[in-house]
Order: sequence, then structure tokens, then C-alpha cells
Amino acid sequence: MSPQPLSPLNCRDLFDCDGVIWKGDELIDGVPQTLEMLRAKGKKLVFVTNNSLKSRSQYAEKFRSLGISVSQDEIFSSSFAAAMYLKLCDISGIGALLNVQVYVIGGEGILEELRLAGIAAFGGPGDANKTINLKQNCFVEYDKSVGAVVVGIDPNINYYKLQSLEISLDYCPQQFVYIKDLYGYICAGCMVAAICGSTQKEPVVAGKPSTFMMEFLLKKFNVSCSKMCTVGDRLDTDVLFGQNAGCKTLLVLSGCTTQSALQDPSNNIQPDYYTSKISDMLDLSGA
Amino acid sequence: MSPQPLSPLNCRDLFDCDGVIWKGDELIDGVPQTLEMLRAKGKKLVFVTNNSLKSRSQYAEKFRSLGISVSQDEIFSSSFAAAMYLKLCDISGIGALLNVQVYVIGGEGILEELRLAGIAAFGGPGDANKTINLKQNCFVEYDKSVGAVVVGIDPNINYYKLQSLEISLDYCPQQFVYIKDLYGYICAGCMVAAICGSTQKEPVVAGKPSTFMMEFLLKKFNVSCSKMCTVGDRLDTDVLFGQNAGCKTLLVLSGCTTQSALQDPSNNIQPDYYTSKISDMLDLSGA
Repeated sequence: MSPQPLSPLNCRDLFDCDGVIWKGDELIDGVPQTLEMLRAKGKKLVFVTNNSLKSRSQYAEKFRSLGISVSQDEIFSSSFAAAMYLKLCDISGIGALLNVQVYVIGGEGILEELRLAGIAAFGGPGDANKTINLKQNCFVEYDKSVGAVVVGIDPNINYYKLQSLEISLDYCPQQFVYIKDLYGYICAGCMVAAICGSTQKEPVVAGKPSTFMMEFLLKKFNVSCSKMCTVGDRLDTDVLFGQNAGCKTLLVLSGCTTQSALQDPSNNIQPDYYTSKISDMLDLSGA
Repeated sequence: MSPQPLSPLNCRDLFDCDGVIWKGDELIDGVPQTLEMLRAKGKKLVFVTNNSLKSRSQYAEKFRSLGISVSQDEIFSSSFAAAMYLKLCDISGIGALLNVQVYVIGGEGILEELRLAGIAAFGGPGDANKTINLKQNCFVEYDKSVGAVVVGIDPNINYYKLQSLEISLDYCPQQFVYIKDLYGYICAGCMVAAICGSTQKEPVVAGKPSTFMMEFLLKKFNVSCSKMCTVGDRLDTDVLFGQNAGCKTLLVLSGCTTQSALQDPSNNIQPDYYTSKISDMLDLSGA
């Protein structure tokens, strides 16, 4: 069935996403009123973002700075998802006993979430200024404590980090978690393609559209998929994320997807509904 | 047929390679005497390297600094191969008329070889300290003059460069040349895997084992494959390079390949001959 324009009957519980609430540091029109209306109707909101640069508390602060009150518990970032995945792998339990650490390529948000989950981690912004001597006999020393690596978008990516990561993946029998990151930049996916190529190891994807993230959400909030609607501006992450789990899906055109891209015959990801921006729900609610 | 230890009858014209002559900044034992003996026997020598950081003149200088006299014409670097490939694509002819430039990820050697071939180029070490603002609305500006990109090993790789490269590949109907680089570091291949993944464009490989490099060599030196032997320390570049062209191949164990790796059942690249180091030829020559 081709996607339907949003109509009043379609409003359900929903997840909101990066690019739907704000663009960069600016709120999208009508967002505060829309979220208030939904809360007033008793909807539970969860904000799911694939941008791993920040932790949940940093996102809560960003919401506050934009005049929206959102608790940390309502935020589900890919940085948090990566930490939860590794926690379930018992990196925090058996790993801590064995002094296992996680090497991070990405932002401070990943390091913060790992530490909150009781997982020792290093790398990230701390390796921003490290360099490597390219003489053929000089290698980066291998840190035997590395038991897993997490890769997210990293504005400070450099040769030292890539080399450290490759060596970690070559030598340790570790987990390799990859955070599918925000659109519009050379994303973590690039680095991961690189690393998979050189190490022949396949990463676990922690962000959208991975099923791990959805299963965790469903368990945490104790809801069934049929009671949820994912709302997002991207077909290949947000909409696919909802569809993979059997949720309803709403595409908003306020972000990176245009109506013509949605309706192009080459597009094979069809949301249940689409609308120009989430505040269109205000009109439908009779508010 | 499984590879044979080197014997006197097998000595023929040959190419030498990076890792066979030196390791880092140190000559491998007996190299000067071996090269002298081969020249005395009338052998033509060509030094083929996949390390694109240097230009041919910079390699000639490196040979000189190690006490070996080698002319620039005897050196065939992947930086030079990339420049020759683009020259054959007429980037220097029609391209120059249209003010087409080449964007480079890699070392100064690539820029130098491109300029010597009459091709305008930028990037490389010049972009080492450039940064990018990761706000969602800020993009790297697209340089419309970019008509091709060349990617080699880049010790100064950063986010700005990756972003510039992705944008160049997204927007221009250009050539994309990739230099298969030296072993032991996160190589250009990583970045290229990344870029192929994000842009769906396949690169032309300029270095070993590409057939372009060999065809160019055969034409330049006006010899047939049957008169040549490739000598190298890597199975998947040096030996494959020779085999793809129908040359004889000699693997030396003085670099990154061990005898057990060579004889491992999982290895499916078999050289015609192998020996511990090129100076073993001194004994065989009766010198």
C-alpha cells in the first residue's frame, strides 16, 4: 500500500527522532506545542537518535537549551545503545574482572555512556592529536586490554585512530560495535566499511535500523510494536527501523527526504504515513 | 606447480620492489652488491613501489641516501602510475582547457607527479590542518573544478579530507584513481572501501597488482612479459602483479611474507620461485 497522508485517526504513541525536532541548533516550527499536545493526550514519547556524538544527558541538555523539557529516560541515543549492547555481552561484568577495556572511535557521548554502564573505555576525543610515524618498522603498540571497539562518527578521525582500531580488531577476540550515524557527513559507516575490508570482521550495528535497539526499547518501555509509531525524516534508518519491528511508521518531510524522493519509483521503503512536519498533528488533533 | 627454491638457471631480467631493497630506512643485507652484479650481467632493473608518499625523484634521492645509484627512469612508483593514468584520460589536455583539477588524498609525491604530468592538483598535505564544523547545516563547499580524485596512503587523513572527497565523488563525473599502498599501515584501501561504500563508485587501481601499471611498464621499456621476472615480498601485490601479466615471479622472504605463510594450504598465490633475500642471487651467479 502506498503511504497515506496523515489523517486524524492515525495518531498513536510515537517515537521522535533527530532531524524531526531540530535542524542543527534550531527547532523545527511548532515542535514544542506538538510535543505538549501529545503529552496532554497521555502519549509516551521517546526520542531516538543515531547521532552518537552526545550522551543522553547531553541530549537532555540540548532539549532544555531549546526550551523543551525532556528527561534523560525519554532519550535513546546510539551511544547509549552501544553501551547497552556491550553490557549485555557482559563486558561490564566478566570484562571488568579481566580488566577489559573498550577502544572508542567517536565522540565524548560514547565514552560517557560506556562509563555510566560500568565499562572502562578510552580513545575518542583523547586521541585527537595523536600522530603516527610512518616508517615501515614503526607500529602502533597493541593494547592487550582492548576487548571491544565502538565506532561512531568522529570529527577528529586521524591515522593514529584508524591504525589503533585495525590493530585492536586484528589481535583481540572482541566485540565490534558500529553506530550508524547521522546523515550529511562522512559517517561512521565509511570508517566501518574500511575496517571491515581490512580486518574481515563484521560489526554489530547498534543504531537504527538495528533490531537490537528496538528490542531493547520494547523491553524497557514494556510496550508492543502495535502500540508504537516511529516518526523520522529518513527512509533507510527511521522508517526501516519501525518497519523491521512491525511498528507503524510516519515520515516527515522536514528533514532530508523530499516528497519526490519518497514517491520516486526507485524508492522501495514506504512509510505508512507521511506529512510535512510533526506540527501538522496539531491541526489533526483539533488543538 | 609449487614454488621452487631459486636456482642458478632461474635468474632473468627482474623488477625489484619496496620491502625487498630496504626496510624502513635500512638497506637489506647484500642489496648493493646484488644490484651491481645484475647490472654487470646486463640486466635492466626497474624499481616498482606501491608506496605513493614519494615521487620518483624523491625515491631516487632515497636510493642515493642509501648509497645506491638509481636513475629516476628506473623507478616506477604508484604516484607516477596515477599521474600517467590520468594523463591517458586526457585530464592534462581537455582537462586543462576546462580548468579541471584533481583532488588528492595522499602524500606530496602524488601532487608532484601530477604536476610533472601537466595536471593541476590540490589537497594532500595542504589540507592536513583543515577542520570541519559538524553542525547539521554546515557543509564543505563543493569545488566545481574537481574532475578526478586520487587516493593514496595519507598520514594526515582527517574528517575534512574525507568529506571533501565524498562530495567530489558525489557531484562530479570524474575519474577516481586509487593507489594500492604499502603494507603494514591502515592503507589507502581502507579509505577507498569507505568511499566506495558511501558513493557507490568503483575506483581504478593504479598500483600493483593492476594491469594498467604493467601494461605501461611493458610499453615504456619495450619488453615482453616472458623476459621479465617480478621480485617482491608480498603475494597479493608483487607476485599477483607478475602473474597477472604472465611474468615469472620471485618471492623474497626478507619482507612481510614468511615461508610458512607461503606454504600454508590456505595460500592460493604461488610464485614461481622463492628465496630468503635478493642477495642469495650472488651465490647463484658465482660472484
